[in-house]
Amino acid sequence: MMNHLNMNECAGGVTAPQGFRAAGMYCGVRKVKKDIAMIVSDVPATVAGVFTLNKTQAAPILVDKAQLKRSSLCSAIVVNSGNANACTGERGLNDAWQMVRTTAEVLGVPEEHVLVSSTGVIGQYMPMDKVIPAIGELAKMLSRSGNKDAAEAIMTTDTYPKEVAVQFTLGASTVTIGGVAKGSGMIAPNMATMLAFISTDVAISQQLLTKALQSANNRSFNRITVDGDMSTNDQVLVLANGLAKNAPFGENSEEYQLFSAALEYVMIKLAKMIARDGEGATKLIEIQVKGARSEEEAAQAARAVANSNLVKTALHGADANWGRILAAVGYSGIEFNPDIVEISFNDLPILKKNYEIVLDEEKAKAILEQENVIVTIDLNQGNQFARFWTCDLTKEYVHINASYRS
Amino acid sequence: MMNHLNMNECAGGVTAPQGFRAAGMYCGVRKVKKDIAMIVSDVPATVAGVFTLNKTQAAPILVDKAQLKRSSLCSAIVVNSGNANACTGERGLNDAWQMVRTTAEVLGVPEEHVLVSSTGVIGQYMPMDKVIPAIGELAKMLSRSGNKDAAEAIMTTDTYPKEVAVQFTLGASTVTIGGVAKGSGMIAPNMATMLAFISTDVAISQQLLTKALQSANNRSFNRITVDGDMSTNDQVLVLANGLAKNAPFGENSEEYQLFSAALEYVMIKLAKMIARDGEGATKLIEIQVKGARSEEEAAQAARAVANSNLVKTALHGADANWGRILAAVGYSGIEFNPDIVEISFNDLPILKKNYEIVLDEEKAKAILEQENVIVTIDLNQGNQFARFWTCDLTKEYVHINASYRS
Repeated sequence: MMNHLNMNECAGGVTAPQGFRAAGMYCGVRKVKKDIAMIVSDVPATVAGVFTLNKTQAAPILVDKAQLKRSSLCSAIVVNSGNANACTGERGLNDAWQMVRTTAEVLGVPEEHVLVSSTGVIGQYMPMDKVIPAIGELAKMLSRSGNKDAAEAIMTTDTYPKEVAVQFTLGASTVTIGGVAKGSGMIAPNMATMLAFISTDVAISQQLLTKALQSANNRSFNRITVDGDMSTNDQVLVLANGLAKNAPFGENSEEYQLFSAALEYVMIKLAKMIARDGEGATKLIEIQVKGARSEEEAAQAARAVANSNLVKTALHGADANWGRILAAVGYSGIEFNPDIVEISFNDLPILKKNYEIVLDEEKAKAILEQENVIVTIDLNQGNQFARFWTCDLTKEYVHINASYRS
Repeated sequence: MMNHLNMNECAGGVTAPQGFRAAGMYCGVRKVKKDIAMIVSDVPATVAGVFTLNKTQAAPILVDKAQLKRSSLCSAIVVNSGNANACTGERGLNDAWQMVRTTAEVLGVPEEHVLVSSTGVIGQYMPMDKVIPAIGELAKMLSRSGNKDAAEAIMTTDTYPKEVAVQFTLGASTVTIGGVAKGSGMIAPNMATMLAFISTDVAISQQLLTKALQSANNRSFNRITVDGDMSTNDQVLVLANGLAKNAPFGENSEEYQLFSAALEYVMIKLAKMIARDGEGATKLIEIQVKGARSEEEAAQAARAVANSNLVKTALHGADANWGRILAAVGYSGIEFNPDIVEISFNDLPILKKNYEIVLDEEKAKAILEQENVIVTIDLNQGNQFARFWTCDLTKEYVHINASYRS
């Protein structure tokens, strides 16, 4: 894909595209660590978003959905970690709107061009006395090299910041896409969230941007799982400010295909970073299901395997336990014939049709002890394919999530 | 219910009802521990069964489904632990049939009156040289007090045998129901299974027995979860041999209601033992959802909470983390209003409507440190109710399931 796209990774994360600035700082929502960030486009950017499907939705999710109905443009996103502003009722909603209004004031942009995001503890009110002054500070600190501070400020139990940026050619223009994300591991003391903010200088209609985002999201952030728990605050926002000045393109153009592929690359890269950084994880596990009748069927089977505690503990123990994998496919809900399924680990065949076990225990153990494991499951009933990413389930996960909040 | 039923628990487990004998012994499928059992009714018993919905079904499941189509009667069940006879193809199927035929021969009963069950490692052939002679031995050992040996022989990672029996009056007759089960914790080295065998001397039609079993199963074994992984071998069988000589009864009779209630009591008791004995568990957790519009809706919400790794680790850590509970209800798929949900632990209110947090951290922690925790979630949108049972998620669970098979 990279060759076809003539795409290169570059530095700069979310501020790599033209016209984007960012900042991150400590304001006291958390006990230590930077905890509030701002990402700004110098010109209003076309915006698209996808949000958690959880019926229990945090205040910033409700605000952002309302904002996207008011305007197709966005100039700024303000994000805090340490407090999710979820299950906070009317007061939480007022707080989220206050964060939007304050950001609009200090930046001198219309209120409807500002989005807000929060991640952290559920059921506690935002410390607005700390947040509001910080928003003013952030506005003064915005810079083209603020991406790293922003990436750190949105982290919760993440063990490293998650950034990526790519450049590629679109007609006569060079287009850049950048992105920053935080992990899906759930926070001690409370639950956290998967957040991602994507920036690009491409010129694109909101309709196409939304379509590209949804398609890429289905193959990236919707294909990762740490513990199967869905957050109240999950969101992915993409801002496209048009400063690359590429010629307009339509849905059936090669340009749209190229942009979509690059966006998917960026989002999959961030998604894999999140899966690898799951709480307590020691390895990234990619579940590939092939030979399916549809991509949806392949994804459904892969999801069941990726969510199986038994598979994830076995892989943690470097145990080539194909029986648990086959059992998980068995309860995934898809129709298939277990007799003809084949399984391999990093291309090493483990199980052939009719339960022929070709497992070499020594070789399998060596593969499973690596940091990156690809489990391939061939259903042998079609030619469709899907991937899912997860991590192993460890004692450290239990330790992190069983510790008392105080 | 016990008063209304005038029901008493009694000793004897699966051999408590008239005309049932059992035996259990060591034959070498496992390294140590009794590993094969037989349960027999002296007269052919009416039989009903429910089986795993996993598409990957073990050989004994396929055999028993075929047997139930051949005959509505059962005289004997032969069960081994240590090997699941799953993913073993044609040869595994032949082995399961061979176990059936041998049992029929040594007992002198028709082949179609014998059922077979296995639990243990997936993907390995049964050691038939050990199993076949053992079946002959078991037939000689059968006794009215063989229930304990049988209960031990079907255990895998269970830490204690699971038996229960009750007696109640039905018209002029005393009816007894007994039961034995093994745990749903998944075996190291491989996956295991939830098995239950229920015996009773009631006289009942197969149609009503099936109806009562399905109803009780929906409120017992279908309402427990240890890790959300569904086995290839799960089954529940109930045998009713009629020796209590009660008068025949129909579907709308009080007798049917009484029998159904007693059966549900027995099955819930066994189900709770299984949940409490989940691998690595330190406590039994009951999730109660009330104020629902239907029992199905309540069960769906309860299931999501019971399956949440985040809830289960929090409860392990005695953390009154109601946010994780509300989030799990949020992604359960039911329609509800999170603003009016109320949550309590063992009747101690934690969360009231409109996110009013009435949590007393000290008291909550004391409750959550107990061995039995009831989490009550009131949706406040109806008057229906359901319960679900699970256990906490511990480092020991990871340890057990990450250990290498050899």
